[in-house]
Amino acid sequence: MAKSGILFVISGPSGAGKGTVRGKVMEREVGLAFSVSATTRVPRPGEIDGLHYHFITKEEFEKMIENGDFIEYVAKFQNYYGTPKAQVESLLADGKDVLLEIETIGANNVRRMFPDAVMIFITPSTFEELERRLLYRGTESEKLQKLRLRIAKKEYKSMRRYDYIAINDDLDQCVSLICSIIKAERAKRSRNKDIVEQFNQIK
Amino acid sequence: MAKSGILFVISGPSGAGKGTVRGKVMEREVGLAFSVSATTRVPRPGEIDGLHYHFITKEEFEKMIENGDFIEYVAKFQNYYGTPKAQVESLLADGKDVLLEIETIGANNVRRMFPDAVMIFITPSTFEELERRLLYRGTESEKLQKLRLRIAKKEYKSMRRYDYIAINDDLDQCVSLICSIIKAERAKRSRNKDIVEQFNQIK
Repeated sequence: MAKSGILFVISGPSGAGKGTVRGKVMEREVGLAFSVSATTRVPRPGEIDGLHYHFITKEEFEKMIENGDFIEYVAKFQNYYGTPKAQVESLLADGKDVLLEIETIGANNVRRMFPDAVMIFITPSTFEELERRLLYRGTESEKLQKLRLRIAKKEYKSMRRYDYIAINDDLDQCVSLICSIIKAERAKRSRNKDIVEQFNQIK
Repeated sequence: MAKSGILFVISGPSGAGKGTVRGKVMEREVGLAFSVSATTRVPRPGEIDGLHYHFITKEEFEKMIENGDFIEYVAKFQNYYGTPKAQVESLLADGKDVLLEIETIGANNVRRMFPDAVMIFITPSTFEELERRLLYRGTESEKLQKLRLRIAKKEYKSMRRYDYIAINDDLDQCVSLICSIIKAERAKRSRNKDIVEQFNQIK
């Protein structure tokens, strides 16, 4: 049986920097497959269907929601964005490792769908730092900022369900830590039964 | 309560390169405490007691063996060499991470004494490569070489008790993998209860 891939999930509150971290890890780490999100929004000039996004209609998207075809999805500015489950499953079956960036609510869902997923919680080292980042974004109303902080406090309650905690005070260090976690997980004995088997067959 | 350190153990058959790997990791990785071995051999010029070795008498050493004071010990060329348990315990209690290089028989012992130890099995990717390394060492008699190979086959049977398997075909890659494992283990949620606690206390 071919070895299946590993699903890595980055999550954490708004302001933790999970999107930036994921982008940098994808650039650096060799051998991570890219999972293409589905969306109902109109393609921007130059965007290619199946490469940047799977562009589907609102009806198609809602049908997929009904069928439980998404690992997670969000509605933003009248459009849906989601991670199709089938695509991730097929990448993993091909032995490819996948890195997803997901909201904390979706992350709990991933754990149920993929019990072997490696769950990484990203956070600055203190709540004060998160507060500072959210408040100084500047592009958001005070009301929205306060809402985000209230949500963040709740999101920290789910920390205990994660396998790793990656402190993101320094972006480079955090990216390098995630890459280390990926390499270490690949070297776990439980994920290398083929090697153990091979050596145990020596007469 | 202060956070206790992590005990990392490198093991594997002769010819896997565990000694070289340990040396390179100690050079590279910041924050690993050095565990000083005890020995009954005479200090060489320049060697300092407590720094290079704890130089003790044969009687003292054998008393310590009787008391179960060693994590492991070997007898080589009429002299004893051993890793004192008390020293490792005291480093870990101080929150310092320790990296030991140990024979596979001793490694099973470590697991019993330190259930939270991170056990890493080092091996070339094939048994043929191990054979090649052992046979081409050249400094050993054919009889000793064959004995080593027979022992190595047995040592692979213990692979399933390790947490990680580190392939050592390329020294730099293997050293870098061990450093990744160290960083990843430090980031495990189960080893960072203080951080989880801190965020969960936010009102």
